[in-house]
Amino acid sequence: MTRLKLDKITQYIAAQRPGYSLAQAFYKDVDVYQAEIEQIFLKHWLYAGHASQIPLAGDYFTFDFDSESVIIVRTISGDVKAHMNVCRHRGSKICLEPSGSQKSLTCPYHAWNYNLDGQLISARNMPDDFDRSQNGLHKVNVALLHGLIFVCLSKEPPSLSALQNELDEVFDLFGFNNMKLAEKKSYRIPANWKLAVENYQECYHCAPSHPEFAQIHAMAKPPKVFQMAKSNFAQANQGQPKFKQLNRYFDLAAAGQEGYQYDRNPLLRNALSGSVGGKRAAPLLGSIQEYDGGASELMIGPLSYFLIYDDHMLGYRFLPNSVDECICDVSWYVNESAVQGKDYQLEQLTWLWDVTTQADKKIIMNNQKGVDSRYYQPGRLSEMEHFQQSFLTWYLKTLDQQT
Amino acid sequence: MTRLKLDKITQYIAAQRPGYSLAQAFYKDVDVYQAEIEQIFLKHWLYAGHASQIPLAGDYFTFDFDSESVIIVRTISGDVKAHMNVCRHRGSKICLEPSGSQKSLTCPYHAWNYNLDGQLISARNMPDDFDRSQNGLHKVNVALLHGLIFVCLSKEPPSLSALQNELDEVFDLFGFNNMKLAEKKSYRIPANWKLAVENYQECYHCAPSHPEFAQIHAMAKPPKVFQMAKSNFAQANQGQPKFKQLNRYFDLAAAGQEGYQYDRNPLLRNALSGSVGGKRAAPLLGSIQEYDGGASELMIGPLSYFLIYDDHMLGYRFLPNSVDECICDVSWYVNESAVQGKDYQLEQLTWLWDVTTQADKKIIMNNQKGVDSRYYQPGRLSEMEHFQQSFLTWYLKTLDQQT
Amino acid sequence: MTRLKLDKITQYIAAQRPGYSLAQAFYKDVDVYQAEIEQIFLKHWLYAGHASQIPLAGDYFTFDFDSESVIIVRTISGDVKAHMNVCRHRGSKICLEPSGSQKSLTCPYHAWNYNLDGQLISARNMPDDFDRSQNGLHKVNVALLHGLIFVCLSKEPPSLSALQNELDEVFDLFGFNNMKLAEKKSYRIPANWKLAVENYQECYHCAPSHPEFAQIHAMAKPPKVFQMAKSNFAQANQGQPKFKQLNRYFDLAAAGQEGYQYDRNPLLRNALSGSVGGKRAAPLLGSIQEYDGGASELMIGPLSYFLIYDDHMLGYRFLPNSVDECICDVSWYVNESAVQGKDYQLEQLTWLWDVTTQADKKIIMNNQKGVDSRYYQPGRLSEMEHFQQSFLTWYLKTLDQQT
Repeated sequence: MTRLKLDKITQYIAAQRPGYSLAQAFYKDVDVYQAEIEQIFLKHWLYAGHASQIPLAGDYFTFDFDSESVIIVRTISGDVKAHMNVCRHRGSKICLEPSGSQKSLTCPYHAWNYNLDGQLISARNMPDDFDRSQNGLHKVNVALLHGLIFVCLSKEPPSLSALQNELDEVFDLFGFNNMKLAEKKSYRIPANWKLAVENYQECYHCAPSHPEFAQIHAMAKPPKVFQMAKSNFAQANQGQPKFKQLNRYFDLAAAGQEGYQYDRNPLLRNALSGSVGGKRAAPLLGSIQEYDGGASELMIGPLSYFLIYDDHMLGYRFLPNSVDECICDVSWYVNESAVQGKDYQLEQLTWLWDVTTQADKKIIMNNQKGVDSRYYQPGRLSEMEHFQQSFLTWYLKTLDQQT
Repeated sequence: MTRLKLDKITQYIAAQRPGYSLAQAFYKDVDVYQAEIEQIFLKHWLYAGHASQIPLAGDYFTFDFDSESVIIVRTISGDVKAHMNVCRHRGSKICLEPSGSQKSLTCPYHAWNYNLDGQLISARNMPDDFDRSQNGLHKVNVALLHGLIFVCLSKEPPSLSALQNELDEVFDLFGFNNMKLAEKKSYRIPANWKLAVENYQECYHCAPSHPEFAQIHAMAKPPKVFQMAKSNFAQANQGQPKFKQLNRYFDLAAAGQEGYQYDRNPLLRNALSGSVGGKRAAPLLGSIQEYDGGASELMIGPLSYFLIYDDHMLGYRFLPNSVDECICDVSWYVNESAVQGKDYQLEQLTWLWDVTTQADKKIIMNNQKGVDSRYYQPGRLSEMEHFQQSFLTWYLKTLDQQT
Repeated sequence: MTRLKLDKITQYIAAQRPGYSLAQAFYKDVDVYQAEIEQIFLKHWLYAGHASQIPLAGDYFTFDFDSESVIIVRTISGDVKAHMNVCRHRGSKICLEPSGSQKSLTCPYHAWNYNLDGQLISARNMPDDFDRSQNGLHKVNVALLHGLIFVCLSKEPPSLSALQNELDEVFDLFGFNNMKLAEKKSYRIPANWKLAVENYQECYHCAPSHPEFAQIHAMAKPPKVFQMAKSNFAQANQGQPKFKQLNRYFDLAAAGQEGYQYDRNPLLRNALSGSVGGKRAAPLLGSIQEYDGGASELMIGPLSYFLIYDDHMLGYRFLPNSVDECICDVSWYVNESAVQGKDYQLEQLTWLWDVTTQADKKIIMNNQKGVDSRYYQPGRLSEMEHFQQSFLTWYLKTLDQQT
């Protein structure tokens, strides 16, 4: 990025008032977008999927955002590895399908053949001085967090040690290692990715916009009512690992460590899970013995969010296609032993967050339309947008690291 | 806009020869387009609609161009007011439908609530020092010209006093205050807005391109034939207010005044109105007592054109979506007492200008395709393109005011 | 193009290593694309069609790429002429249909009328000092090579004398003057045009990607096997004009001369032609007396490729729409005396190259996707990509002529 562009972005950042929404340029300027890809999406851990999606050697799926595509594959030795989906010959995409199973990775163009570890095994008719060992697929860092697969495209990823230490017990409790993907839905949103992330980060809009959610989650209540319910809920369950509160998100993360957050919040009206009428949606997760009427929020890195009911877990991620389009992917996980149609019904399981995400998509689109106006100006944030405020503080600082 | 971009535009303007069509850059350069939005569309009066579209308190419609959206609403006190359709919180669009009726204006995102005058009435959970009085919707100037609603997004709009003085009698005569919208059609044209406006401004193309129009309007005839017919028509009706000639358009407007034009032209072959066979299309307008075999041209501001037959009136406007796409909106108005199906048939009423505008859309698209060529060069204008030449002179001067 | 942009392109060129595929910028930077249009597409001879498409005076077809459109027309005197499809008045496209027949060329907008030679004949209502003789259509150079129509938009086209001298005998032998267009298909490819051209230039991908082609053409074999077959084939037919080898392509062209290439290669398994099972596809071309089991490659200028079987000929051309989209047009020609349905079946005739070009389209799209990645880096070319390497050398040099 040229000095001129960097200076422009630095000026945007300097002009931004704390406690206010972002200026228009952050949502529209393609140079800001490129800086975001470089500083955020290529440098942080991104939630790609779950190990249960690729049980056998050769099983793979791809993970795509912007113009990048990553192959995530189970190797012969049983490891999960990740490679850039770009042939080292003339650059063709190698795996064309979103998932599949291959003995090795063969480029469909000129048949250069890589093993599952990404090493170039064969390339026909190359000059004598061609060195296959220097032409393996570009490696991508992989972290397995109790089955959850994270990737980081940077060569120097932030450390996950703090979050692993603190979250280990929680991962165990909910049996993250023993989950399976029950359903996955993608929502294409014609808006800047930050409008989608910010929407996820605050529940100020829940009461007016999400009647289904507001029926089940106490979080949609006014702050005082919610805090009272939360406090009672925490006291009644004091000391249990489920009720940890970990606030290491965004600007609260330790230096060199990836940020995270964990918290448990109460449901309403004796609801047990996030489903129609708050009823049970699937068999209990991990070593959970009974419903406690709550749900846990979990954030790992700046862009990956999880919501853990006692009987199922949702993974949320926000990925940009371009400055003005993003994808929200929602995955529903259940206990790996649960049988679809018998132990859980997909429609019942996915209803709440499908209807909620569809509503969010419309909200986010309308937000973008207004932000596009020359008359939009950053507005004051409410008290219910403190988490978003923390994101914005971190975002501005991260974007500025270029100078 | 940066100095570099301003200088570039100034150079384009300096290179432009009078009497010739515009150079390619004026139709393709996005910086020119941004300058046009700023200098023309945000500074001049734009025709938005008619008061009859919002008879009751709370009735509203939106008026959109480029990335801007304006809410035009009837207030409790019966006034017509206009507000930017952008929430002062995080910028969401507020009115999502093109028209409707609301007791107050509530943002669908976080439920910030504004009254019909645009004042912020309630915003939940805001910090103690938040000042609602400073967070009303951005105001847009409104002018009501005998029922016609014009808006101007600038804080210092040009004066309408001259045109109001001179046109008052005409508005009265045709009963602009007592019209109603009979039909509205939108034509999306993949071309720069100026190609659409220029097309409307000259009848050099009418004979070859619009056989339907050429059957009814003398204006499609060669200049000498037309001038003879016009002169006879004016003489036969001398002194009548319908036959005023007001030439205050573009570069002929007085300083600080919005430009306008009014003129009456003859129809052909005893045609009475702009309809199939030139037949009556609806009950006579206002205080018109009989058909005179003519039609009036009216321009208010640089972008709004009206065509007044004795029994109906058309409103034309050209609005840009982007540098290479515009919308032509055509509205048909009739006497407010006229009953559809009984006093007028929509098909008969709209036929001539629907078929003509569809033909124009094709013409304009093909014009854009040719202008896109590196081999296009500005061509000499004909004698029948004098009105367009006046527009171009004004356009170049207006665009240059930035320096 | 500004100095800044020229410098940028020069830097790209300087950074390019010989023997490697192009850097990403060459496939994505719009300034590179503009330079390519100026230096390559507007300066070289482009294959537009065949004289048999416009047998009679007034017959025309259009030839389009990027934002340019050329009218190719048979004049009263029987010549083939070409004009820019842009009216000299306000720039409208004149011929709107891809082909047709007109007594003269009348602009559909304001009816300016040009004769078939491009001279402006009439323009109504123009000022007295308007000079029609200065307002003819912009001329485009035309070359007729035994019926093949080439155009060059530059005023100083490269010479065709060398290729005409050397190829005359070949054109005669295959009766290029006595062919007719049997079928034409257009393949729209969402990729940079060079990825499509490079794909055509190498057969390294034929074996893995084109099983149908590999059944018929020896060229898909490994280099040693192919060279052996080719050598035997040439020896058996020594001295025949069909077996000329002309290597004047790209950097091998003489100064001021347009480049070209001619060569004949063997088919496999007694195949006679490029059709299902290698069977005869149509009556023999020109003065060909019998099938020899081969096919000729012919290149004329950098962007036009022909494949000549004994009984039909294919014309290939690659034209850009924009930096990220191109068109591959394939034309099938047969002996002009052949009767469709009787002497040849379209499906049989077009099968091989339709299925092959559809496969190529997918390959090229996937190549673009990988090249778009920030992790793409130019890769080493194989020994089977020498022709492409020659193209790249020429391409880089041609692009650099701007400085």
